[in-house]
Amino acid sequence: MENLRAGVIGLGGRGYGMVKAVLLDMPGIEITYICDLYQDRVDRAYELIKEKQGFAPKTTLDYREVIASPDTDVILTYSAWEAHVEIAIAAMNAGKFVGTEVGGAYTLQQCYDLVETYERTGVQCMMLENCCYGREELLTLNMVKQGIFGDIVFCSGGYHHDLRDEITGGDKNRHYRLRNYKARNCENYPTHELGPIAKVLDINRGNRMLGLHSMATKAVGLNDYAAKTEGVDPSLANFKFAQGDIVTTVIDCANGQNIVLTLDTSLPRIYSRGFTVRGTHGMYSEWDGEIIIDGQIDPKFEWSRLDDANNIKRYYEKYEHPIWQKFLNDGVRGGHGGMDWLVTEAFIEAARNSSSKPPIDTYDTASWMCITPLSEISIKNHGNYVEIPDFTSGRWKDRTDFTVGEFNID
Amino acid sequence: MENLRAGVIGLGGRGYGMVKAVLLDMPGIEITYICDLYQDRVDRAYELIKEKQGFAPKTTLDYREVIASPDTDVILTYSAWEAHVEIAIAAMNAGKFVGTEVGGAYTLQQCYDLVETYERTGVQCMMLENCCYGREELLTLNMVKQGIFGDIVFCSGGYHHDLRDEITGGDKNRHYRLRNYKARNCENYPTHELGPIAKVLDINRGNRMLGLHSMATKAVGLNDYAAKTEGVDPSLANFKFAQGDIVTTVIDCANGQNIVLTLDTSLPRIYSRGFTVRGTHGMYSEWDGEIIIDGQIDPKFEWSRLDDANNIKRYYEKYEHPIWQKFLNDGVRGGHGGMDWLVTEAFIEAARNSSSKPPIDTYDTASWMCITPLSEISIKNHGNYVEIPDFTSGRWKDRTDFTVGEFNID
Repeated sequence: MENLRAGVIGLGGRGYGMVKAVLLDMPGIEITYICDLYQDRVDRAYELIKEKQGFAPKTTLDYREVIASPDTDVILTYSAWEAHVEIAIAAMNAGKFVGTEVGGAYTLQQCYDLVETYERTGVQCMMLENCCYGREELLTLNMVKQGIFGDIVFCSGGYHHDLRDEITGGDKNRHYRLRNYKARNCENYPTHELGPIAKVLDINRGNRMLGLHSMATKAVGLNDYAAKTEGVDPSLANFKFAQGDIVTTVIDCANGQNIVLTLDTSLPRIYSRGFTVRGTHGMYSEWDGEIIIDGQIDPKFEWSRLDDANNIKRYYEKYEHPIWQKFLNDGVRGGHGGMDWLVTEAFIEAARNSSSKPPIDTYDTASWMCITPLSEISIKNHGNYVEIPDFTSGRWKDRTDFTVGEFNID
Repeated sequence: MENLRAGVIGLGGRGYGMVKAVLLDMPGIEITYICDLYQDRVDRAYELIKEKQGFAPKTTLDYREVIASPDTDVILTYSAWEAHVEIAIAAMNAGKFVGTEVGGAYTLQQCYDLVETYERTGVQCMMLENCCYGREELLTLNMVKQGIFGDIVFCSGGYHHDLRDEITGGDKNRHYRLRNYKARNCENYPTHELGPIAKVLDINRGNRMLGLHSMATKAVGLNDYAAKTEGVDPSLANFKFAQGDIVTTVIDCANGQNIVLTLDTSLPRIYSRGFTVRGTHGMYSEWDGEIIIDGQIDPKFEWSRLDDANNIKRYYEKYEHPIWQKFLNDGVRGGHGGMDWLVTEAFIEAARNSSSKPPIDTYDTASWMCITPLSEISIKNHGNYVEIPDFTSGRWKDRTDFTVGEFNID
C-alpha cells in the first residue's frame, strides 16, 4: 500500500511537535506539503522534515494551496483555534479527509456548517482528541463497556492546566490564547475531558447532550501573574481580560446523566484532567487515581481515601483496553504519554481503510466544539440554560454508521 | 460560673451521639431536659445521661415543653431536618439561644423567618456546622486570612458520602432522609462544604452569594442498591425517587468568585468533602490533600500530582489554625475528628459570654440553608439562575457586629 500523502497546516508549538514526535516516525504516511502563517515556522519544519524524511515537502503560507494540491491525500490541521473550522470545511469540500487539532468553535453556525459539509460531501472531519486515547481514559471506558460501573450517572473532568506563561508571553507573543483570553469569556477548551466522557456516555450513539449552563469567575489570575513575573508585558498587569479564571459548565443528557466541565488555566496549580466517571456499581476518579467497585471497598480506606490513592494500578492487568494492550506490546511512542501517537494512528486507519469510519466523526466534532459558543452565551446570561443542538437530526438514537476498526472507541 | 442548662431536642443517631461523645464530657454545660418523638430514643438517652451526669434530665415527647421550661437556658436541636427551623424559631421567641444541627431549609420563607425572629428578639440561632472546625478547613482558612493563596477566585466542595444504607433502611426505616429522597430533588445538604467556604469567602461579612443554578442527574442509585441488598425493603427497587443521585450547584458571589457544591450520597464511593480553595497565589484541594503555592511547585511533581499527594502534612507546623493548636495541646476529643467538640465549645462560649457573638450567626444560618429550596426551584427549571436573597438587607458590605471570642472563624 502506498503512503498517505499528508498536508500539514499549522506549525507552531503543537504542529511542529506532532511532526517531530509522531508524523515523521509513523508508518504509512508522508508529509508532502506544509503551511503556516509565519515563514520562520515553515522553515524550521521544512529543515526537519527534509532531513528526517529524506525528501522535502512543498511549502506555502496559504493553506488553500495545501488543500488544492494534487500532492495531498489528507489534511492535518494544527493551526490556531480560529482557523480550525474554516480549514476543515475547505478540506472536506476538496474531498480530503481532515483531522483537526482540538479546540472550541466560535459560533454555533460553524458547527452546523461542519455537519452540512459532511452530509453533502460524504467527507469526514475527525477531531484529533488525543485524550480519548489516554491510558486511564481507555481503561475506564473498557470497564464501563464491560458494565463494571453499572448504570453511568455522572461524569466530570476539566482542563486544569496552569498556562499563565504560555498565555502571557509564550512563543514571541504570537500565541492565539492571549487574544482569546482578552476577548472571550467561555469554556474555551472543552474537549480534553468532554471527548473521553462522550465516549463513556455514548453521545451521538444512543445518547445526546441536551443543554448546558456555564458560569465564570472573575478574571484576576493573568493580571496577578503579569504584575509579578519578569519578562511578561507589564501592560497585561492592568489589562481587563474577558476570560474568567475558572469556568464551570454543567450539561444534561438525554439518558439522564449530567456532565460537569471545568476550564482552569490561569491560576497556579498542577496539571490534571480530573476525569471522573460515576455509576451505580462503581467509579473512577483521576483526582486520586482511584477505582471503587461497590462491595469491594476495604473498610480501612473508607474514611481515609488518600491511603489507597492510585489504586488504579491494580486494575490494569484485568481491564487494560485492547488498544493499550497492543500499544504496550508494540512499544509506546510519541508525545503526551502515547496519546498523540494513537489518535494519529486512528486517523490514518480511517483514511486508508474504506470500511473504517473515524472513531471521532463529524457529528462528534461538531457537538464537542459547540460547547464553546454556547457556554459564552450562557455566561453572558447568568449561567442560564442553553440548548445544545442535535446535529444528527434525530439519528443519535439508533445510528448504524458506527466506528469500525482497530482504534474503535465506541 | 454555673453550668449552662441545655435542653436537647432530637435523640436519633446524631443527637444521641452528640450527647454521648460530646455533651456529657463538656465542661460548663449540663443536660436538664431531653426530647424526641420516639419514646425508645428518649429512654435510651435518659439512662445514659442519668448514669454519666449523676442526675437525670426531664423528658418529654413535645419539644415545646423543653423550650418553655424554666430549667433550660439554651436549646440544642438534633432533630430531623424538617423540624430544625420550627424549633429554632420557637426557642428564639422564648429568649433562648439555639444551636441547630445542619441541614437545608424547605422554603425560602423559613429563612426569612429565622432572620426576622433574630432581628425582633435579639436572640441568635447558630448552625452547628462542625465542618467549619475541621482541621484541614481551618488550616486553609488560616492560610487564606494570611494571604498565602492571594486573591481567592473559586471554591468547591461536596457532600460525597455513600448513604445508601442509611437512606434505605437505617434506624428502623424512621430515618428522615428516606422520605426526603422520595419527595424532593435538591441540594439537600449543602452546609458541610458551604460553611467552610463561606468563611473563606467572607460571606455576609464583606461578600455575599448572589444566585445559583442547580442540575440533578437521574435517580437510579437507590433502586439499584435496594434491588441487590439483602434486608432492604424490596419495593424500593422500583420506587421512583425524586432525588437525583448527584446534584451540582454553582453559585456566584458579589466579589466575583464562584462556588461549586456537589451532593453525592446515593452511589458507591468513599467519603470526601472535596474542599477546594483556589487563589491567585495558591490552592488547597482535599482531593489529593495537597497545598500548592505559586513559585514553590517542585518540577518533578508538576505532571504527577499523586506522587506528592497529602503534602498538606508539611504545612501544619507553620499554618495550623490557633483553634487547632490549642485543641491539639489540650487533647482532641469528641466525634468526627474533634469537629463536634469544637463547634459545641463555640456554641457554649457564645452562650456564656455576653461579649461573644456566635461565629456562625443567624444570617449565616439563613443564607446557608436557603440553598436547598432555591436549588429545588432551579432544578425544576432546567438549572436556570435563581437569586439568593441578601438576608442582611445590605449590611453585608460593612457589618460591624462580627464574631469575637476564642472560636472566631471570621
